[in-house]
Order: sequence, then C-alpha cells, then structure tokens
Amino acid sequence: MEKIKTTVRIAGREYTMTGTDSEEHIHRVAAYVDRKMGEATLVTRMPDNMISVLVAMNVADELLKAQDENTRLRRELLAVTSAADLAGPVAAAEQTEA
Amino acid sequence: MEKIKTTVRIAGREYTMTGTDSEEHIHRVAAYVDRKMGEATLVTRMPDNMISVLVAMNVADELLKAQDENTRLRRELLAVTSAADLAGPVAAAEQTEA
Repeated sequence: MEKIKTTVRIAGREYTMTGTDSEEHIHRVAAYVDRKMGEATLVTRMPDNMISVLVAMNVADELLKAQDENTRLRRELLAVTSAADLAGPVAAAEQTEA
Repeated sequence: MEKIKTTVRIAGREYTMTGTDSEEHIHRVAAYVDRKMGEATLVTRMPDNMISVLVAMNVADELLKAQDENTRLRRELLAVTSAADLAGPVAAAEQTEA
C-alpha cells in the first residue's frame, strides 16, 4: 500500500507523519491532540515534555474506555442477533402452519 | 465524588494523577502509554518531548477509530433491535390466533 506523508502542527511544532491513513484522518487526529495540549497547558504549569505525556495518558484513558464500550456493544449485538436467529425460524414455522 | 491520587511511572519519570478513576484503571492506562513510549523510542531518534507527542498522536488515532467503530456498532444495534421490535408483536399475534 502506498505511504502517505502528512505534515501537521501540534503545540506550535511541525511533525511529518508517514503511514497508510488519509491526510484528512491525520489532520483530524492532530487537531484532537493539539486541542488536548492546549487544554492541558491551561490547567498545569508543567514543562511541555511532561504535558505531552499527560495528554497521551488522557487520550489513552479515553481509548481504553472506548475499547471496553466496544467490547460491551459487540457482546450486546451478538446476544440480540443470536436471540433473533432463535426467534426467526419459530415465527416462520408458525406462519407456514397458519 | 472522592478524588483518587495515583502515582505512575512512564518512560522512567513519575507522574501523580488525580481523578475519580480507580488506581487499577490509571495503572492500566500508564502501562499502555509506557509501552507505546518504549515502542516509539525503538523506531525513532527524536528527542523525548517529540516522542511523547507522537505517542499521543498514535493513541488519538486509535481512539478516533475506536469511536467511529462505536458509532457503527450503536447504529447496527439500534437497527437490529428496531427490527426485532417490529417483528415481535406480529409473531405474538400469530401465536394468539393459533
């Protein structure tokens, strides 16, 4: 797959990202991190290198929660579709008999 | 809600996090970020402060993808449960008539 180079600006510094994601996606990700860096800078006097670790922590916190929610939704979906599969043939058989 | 203080170690430096999440969750998040920092250090010679921004970017990339997947799963679940709600009363009515 072709590698895409995207240059983004985070906390006033440029980074060139190389990967298979679209430039649009990388800009969306960079805007998210840049916003989080800005928010963190407002609430702490830590040096920049520590702020970016804290931002990574905050984003990872959201990620793990989103992954847990994903797992929960997948299980729920599986339970609902399994129940529908079980109910389906019975309803069909009743319709045939009617 | 009571604030919980948790001290974690990321890339050899200690951070004290204050929040409502359990210590267990914060340690899970820190272990995740620490692992990502270690992986990034292996593949780039950038200074530490830039590495942590790249890690934040990588984690945010995963987060946005997980959030998109969450939205997709929620829609699928809604579609399946709406279909089940529509099918339900019909099957019940047929059973009553039989």
